[in-house]
Amino acid sequence: MTPQRKARIEAVAARRQPDLTVFMERVHKPHNVAAVLRTCDAVGVMRAHAVPGEGGLPSLNHTSQGAQRWVELQRHPDTLTGLAVLREAGFRLYAAHFSSSAVDFRSPDYTRPTAIVMGTEKFGVSDEALGLIDEEIVIPMLGMSQSLNVSVATALILYEAQRQRSDAGMYAPRSLAESPWQELAAGWVQR
Amino acid sequence: MTPQRKARIEAVAARRQPDLTVFMERVHKPHNVAAVLRTCDAVGVMRAHAVPGEGGLPSLNHTSQGAQRWVELQRHPDTLTGLAVLREAGFRLYAAHFSSSAVDFRSPDYTRPTAIVMGTEKFGVSDEALGLIDEEIVIPMLGMSQSLNVSVATALILYEAQRQRSDAGMYAPRSLAESPWQELAAGWVQR
Ligand SMILES: C[S@@+](CC[C@H](N)C(=O)[O-])C[C@H]1O[C@@H](n2cnc3c(N)ncnc32)[C@H](O)[C@@H]1O
Ligand SMILES: C[S@@+](CC[C@H](N)C(=O)[O-])C[C@H]1O[C@@H](n2cnc3c(N)ncnc32)[C@H](O)[C@@H]1O
Repeated sequence: MTPQRKARIEAVAARRQPDLTVFMERVHKPHNVAAVLRTCDAVGVMRAHAVPGEGGLPSLNHTSQGAQRWVELQRHPDTLTGLAVLREAGFRLYAAHFSSSAVDFRSPDYTRPTAIVMGTEKFGVSDEALGLIDEEIVIPMLGMSQSLNVSVATALILYEAQRQRSDAGMYAPRSLAESPWQELAAGWVQR
Repeated sequence: MTPQRKARIEAVAARRQPDLTVFMERVHKPHNVAAVLRTCDAVGVMRAHAVPGEGGLPSLNHTSQGAQRWVELQRHPDTLTGLAVLREAGFRLYAAHFSSSAVDFRSPDYTRPTAIVMGTEKFGVSDEALGLIDEEIVIPMLGMSQSLNVSVATALILYEAQRQRSDAGMYAPRSLAESPWQELAAGWVQR
């Protein structure tokens, strides 16, 4: 590894946001999972979460630009178990979902520990998940279609979080002596 | 057609933004073209533009949620011809592209007539296109990957335009007696 590469890896690790994440509930198209992980990497998500759909999690090909190398993907057996892990860890749970009680996706404060629950392509977020989350958020739709592609919707919400966190100075690099940035950078450099 | 459906169609037509568009330069994956058109519909783009890649424009399946029914897609034989049409029509041309001269994608004023040029999956916006545009815009990347999925990048820019235009009152419905809203609504209702 060149010193430049090592420095780049450490700089990226030092900007990771352990308190920002995504929970994919049975998202099953490989290009969607890949695009979500690529966006996670771009905004500093350290670990993403998923409940695999039927047929398991898709294997990820080159279209994620190798983002799965830089974003850990934690699998959960089911929604109940997965969301309990996130709540236990102190995340506020948002579901990206259309409903009369949903708020505009730009209004929450995403500088707080934030997990965004995204639904499966055809049927959206499950009722089970909706019963467990704190708030529903919706992206305005001004046309005839009822929904956006799931990786597009994820990116719009994550980049709103990026904007807020950037304004709040949260991407100022962390000291690599701190946990969990230390382990992260060390693991990446060793590959 | 039910009266409710007709009213919905007319309401959507009355919010269309003829002075906001996207130009896809040889984007060739069907799911990307489909996702771009779906987002176009959602933010009120009336007509999108494309230079087909090798093999032509992909045929669009159900994954666009039928958005291609609501967003006209104008094909151009090549970049030069296509961008000339847009410039002639008074659009300011932005290329979504990484370069040292690119500005942050949130800084331009997208309430003005705006066309966003998006590049092909592997190689990005062509040098030919870069020579013809007014300004380059870039979405911040804080991770290891070099770029976002093209439909994700398109959506982030279009929704920044949506935010600005919404704040400026530009989605207040137009009178359907005006052109081009009149023809649009009439055409949709007849289908
Ligand atoms: C293709 S959509 C699912 C549509 C499904 N028919 C439904 O009604 O929920 C897949 C996921 O993307 C997210 N999504 C898509 N468009 C959205 C929007 N406008 N606002 C919030 N979330 C959205 C949601 O998490 C949704 O579950
Ligand atoms: C997958 S990228 C192409 C990457 C290509 N290797 C390059 O260097 O341009 C496809 C298109 O998405 C858009 N895009 C992706 N990420 C972007 C970003 N962070 N900022 C601006 N545009 C982006 C650009 O229009 C780009 O041409």
